[in-house]
Amino acid sequence: MHEKINAEKVVTGNDVDAIMQNAADAFEKYKKVIPARRACFLEKIAGEMEKLRPQLVTTANEESNLPLARLNGELTRTTNQLKLFATMITEGSWVEASIDSGNINVTPAKPDIRKMLVPVGPVVVFGASNFPFAFSTAGGDTASALASGSVVVIKAHSAHVKTSELVFNAIQNAIELVNMPTYTVQHVVADGNKIGEALVTHPYTTGVGFTGSFSGGKALVQYSNQRDIPIPVFAEMSSINPVVFYPDMLSGSTAELASTYALSITVGAGQFCTNPGILIGIKSDAFDKFLNALAKEIGKVLPQKMLHAGIYDNYSNGLAKMLQKQDVGLLSQSSVAPAEMEVAATITTIPANKFLNDKHFAEEIFGPYSMAVLCSDKEELINVLKSLKGQLTTTIMGTDRDITEYADVIEIQHSMAGRIILNNAPTGVEVCASMVHGGPYPATTDARFTSVGTTAIKRWVRPVCFQNFKDAMLPNELKNNNQLAILRLVNNNYTRDGLHF
Amino acid sequence: MHEKINAEKVVTGNDVDAIMQNAADAFEKYKKVIPARRACFLEKIAGEMEKLRPQLVTTANEESNLPLARLNGELTRTTNQLKLFATMITEGSWVEASIDSGNINVTPAKPDIRKMLVPVGPVVVFGASNFPFAFSTAGGDTASALASGSVVVIKAHSAHVKTSELVFNAIQNAIELVNMPTYTVQHVVADGNKIGEALVTHPYTTGVGFTGSFSGGKALVQYSNQRDIPIPVFAEMSSINPVVFYPDMLSGSTAELASTYALSITVGAGQFCTNPGILIGIKSDAFDKFLNALAKEIGKVLPQKMLHAGIYDNYSNGLAKMLQKQDVGLLSQSSVAPAEMEVAATITTIPANKFLNDKHFAEEIFGPYSMAVLCSDKEELINVLKSLKGQLTTTIMGTDRDITEYADVIEIQHSMAGRIILNNAPTGVEVCASMVHGGPYPATTDARFTSVGTTAIKRWVRPVCFQNFKDAMLPNELKNNNQLAILRLVNNNYTRDGLHF
Repeated sequence: MHEKINAEKVVTGNDVDAIMQNAADAFEKYKKVIPARRACFLEKIAGEMEKLRPQLVTTANEESNLPLARLNGELTRTTNQLKLFATMITEGSWVEASIDSGNINVTPAKPDIRKMLVPVGPVVVFGASNFPFAFSTAGGDTASALASGSVVVIKAHSAHVKTSELVFNAIQNAIELVNMPTYTVQHVVADGNKIGEALVTHPYTTGVGFTGSFSGGKALVQYSNQRDIPIPVFAEMSSINPVVFYPDMLSGSTAELASTYALSITVGAGQFCTNPGILIGIKSDAFDKFLNALAKEIGKVLPQKMLHAGIYDNYSNGLAKMLQKQDVGLLSQSSVAPAEMEVAATITTIPANKFLNDKHFAEEIFGPYSMAVLCSDKEELINVLKSLKGQLTTTIMGTDRDITEYADVIEIQHSMAGRIILNNAPTGVEVCASMVHGGPYPATTDARFTSVGTTAIKRWVRPVCFQNFKDAMLPNELKNNNQLAILRLVNNNYTRDGLHF
Repeated sequence: MHEKINAEKVVTGNDVDAIMQNAADAFEKYKKVIPARRACFLEKIAGEMEKLRPQLVTTANEESNLPLARLNGELTRTTNQLKLFATMITEGSWVEASIDSGNINVTPAKPDIRKMLVPVGPVVVFGASNFPFAFSTAGGDTASALASGSVVVIKAHSAHVKTSELVFNAIQNAIELVNMPTYTVQHVVADGNKIGEALVTHPYTTGVGFTGSFSGGKALVQYSNQRDIPIPVFAEMSSINPVVFYPDMLSGSTAELASTYALSITVGAGQFCTNPGILIGIKSDAFDKFLNALAKEIGKVLPQKMLHAGIYDNYSNGLAKMLQKQDVGLLSQSSVAPAEMEVAATITTIPANKFLNDKHFAEEIFGPYSMAVLCSDKEELINVLKSLKGQLTTTIMGTDRDITEYADVIEIQHSMAGRIILNNAPTGVEVCASMVHGGPYPATTDARFTSVGTTAIKRWVRPVCFQNFKDAMLPNELKNNNQLAILRLVNNNYTRDGLHF
């Protein structure tokens, strides 16, 4: 039924034209599918993926080196995510419906004005290597786009093509079972970067979702800027997720702190966007004690296989370069020698004044790595935080006393990231309405949106306003009777009631 | 108290540094001002402007050539807009507060996650020449930014510097009267384009509001793209606001239609972003009859003075060039000869097949001008609509029968603009929650936002997520007790209740 483009085949401009024409045609049909049926579709995708669970998890394990338990958990998260979007669009209030009634008894007459969010068009999603399920073929970008009424063209990540094809099979089954337009979702497998450029610059593409490197995200933005009509590119790119250990916190028991932090650095071989790549504290005996405890914990961590050769090379080379720098000390490393494709968890140290001298120290080394920045005093701590770029997360490890005494420092943390965490690990991203997995540039290209959680749907829509429309012409969400019983802003009051005349 | 930079003085890079440093410092204070006090500030600005009403209106009339009645109306709209934002932030639900409670009884423990919108930083607003009040110094961009908690640097439009300074005086008075940080609003008067570049590329600037030409908006976007950290540029640029006259509608009385449309083209000398620059219909005797009626109405319109010499020249030259084109016919023009700086309202005609051959026909001629595109059949009508770029508005002039028979054509109208209007004039933009004054590129740089209406506030904020915070550390909007009684999404349910444990 679907034309599949195989890995062996280089996708040409003509192929992309055909794919995007299919997407544009499917969009004209899919955007009219009522939310209840779209919800059914999302649930069906989740169901079809569950049916393939053993095969999916085994294949992803072979392709990504990620452990089975982790992949099972990630698959559950992915299917729950699809169901969460289904629940949200069934409820329906996410469209931000609003009504301002007209008044013909004033001069000039006040027209009836109504507004809601509508999908824009085909979305291109680039799968991420570090989450073969949750940020890939049927991951958050795809789920949120389909929930919004957008159709999706997925570019499979070359590191897990087989997994991606299996997931796409599940989506195809769901399309057939609930009778969605054939090309609601399309799957592109192709080598090289040219395909990305062709997809992003195609006139029918209206939005892009990407999770990956800074250079990759920047390239996609550049493609968008080359277009006659630029489009939103939602790229989640790089973040070192600073964790600040405040003095009073360190004066307490450091054993648990050290093991929490060591786990957060090394879980999944540190291959998380929210992995804490830098920890900061003011020099003291207590800080030394904590670093020693952390060093011990890291020493115990067994080497782990990386996702693919590219990430392995980047980590190995990045770390080797870092360790050659004059001011960088090696605090601790896994005590067991790594096997092929494995890497050793590593913590380095650097004095804050040296850290401030070279912006390369603040660059992400993707993997089980963190750098401890040792500040002489509060002023240096402030300077280090101010030197950092936009982040996905930042963590406050502090007691009530720290929070009072370091209020000015914590304020800097508040302005640097999309998620501010108190005494928790930054890794582990809840899929919920309140999640912000986003943050100021270069953490993402657009701090106003999140790629995880239900509000991720807002990336694929725009508001449209209907003036003086007759009730029958309005979308269901804006009709007088509010048959869907969604929450609407009616004449500046939130209500689920219909309009009565 | 304030350093004012006078028109005579060229603003240098050092001046801009000082201005943006002041803005950044003021932001650190102003963002902490509670919404109730920010609301009081907005109301005070409105009050201070009202006190200056006679002087404001007279000065604006001298600078802009706009009639006193129009300026009085625009000033009322501007002060009402300030009050509307004050009401919205006093109510408070606009921050989209959301809470997902934690659960320590699951493994891994589910953290408490809360989210709300927060202001990002200093905003640069460029005044627009065609609305000396509503889109200028204390207009929608400034009002929405101040409401959000952002501070504002205003670049006065050179066409109404005196008006802008008077409005800024009112703002300064309000700052003093309600004791806001001194540099919450700053006013820059300078000649040339360099100042725009310096303001937009300054590292402390976090957002830009602009209403003006396509080339102006595009330049600002380019400046943003040159930055290390690109920032959102909300530019409302150009739109020809197509009006489609459907056959059954034309078969009725055309006299009222013609006068409505003639007024919409010529009100304010056509110097509105929503001015209908193109009208489209299928050739018929009824369409001819309508065009004749329209021609008569346009003939009666007296020439009007344009806002400033630049707009006058653009209109005169653009129109002269258009009339020289081989396929363009002159349908009607004001029958009275224009005096100095005045222009004649004009309607031209063109066959659809010729219109489709040259994209210049679809370019905006800012002023009392409209082009009638004559289609041979429905197919040509569809082709004309599909050839158009993104628009602020599009209007359906149609009966119930038209709406049924031309559903596929109307669907194209739905996807091209931010506001779809039925049997109303596109000019006249209500300031309300449901308004969308925005639309697909190149109408604006970002179709996801509006520059008119209360949701304009969303342009200056980003979501921030707080994980595992103690109640005392949370912003008031996210504390358990919900003392502000705002509407929040708590565990996926909308409620104004507090959280009880």
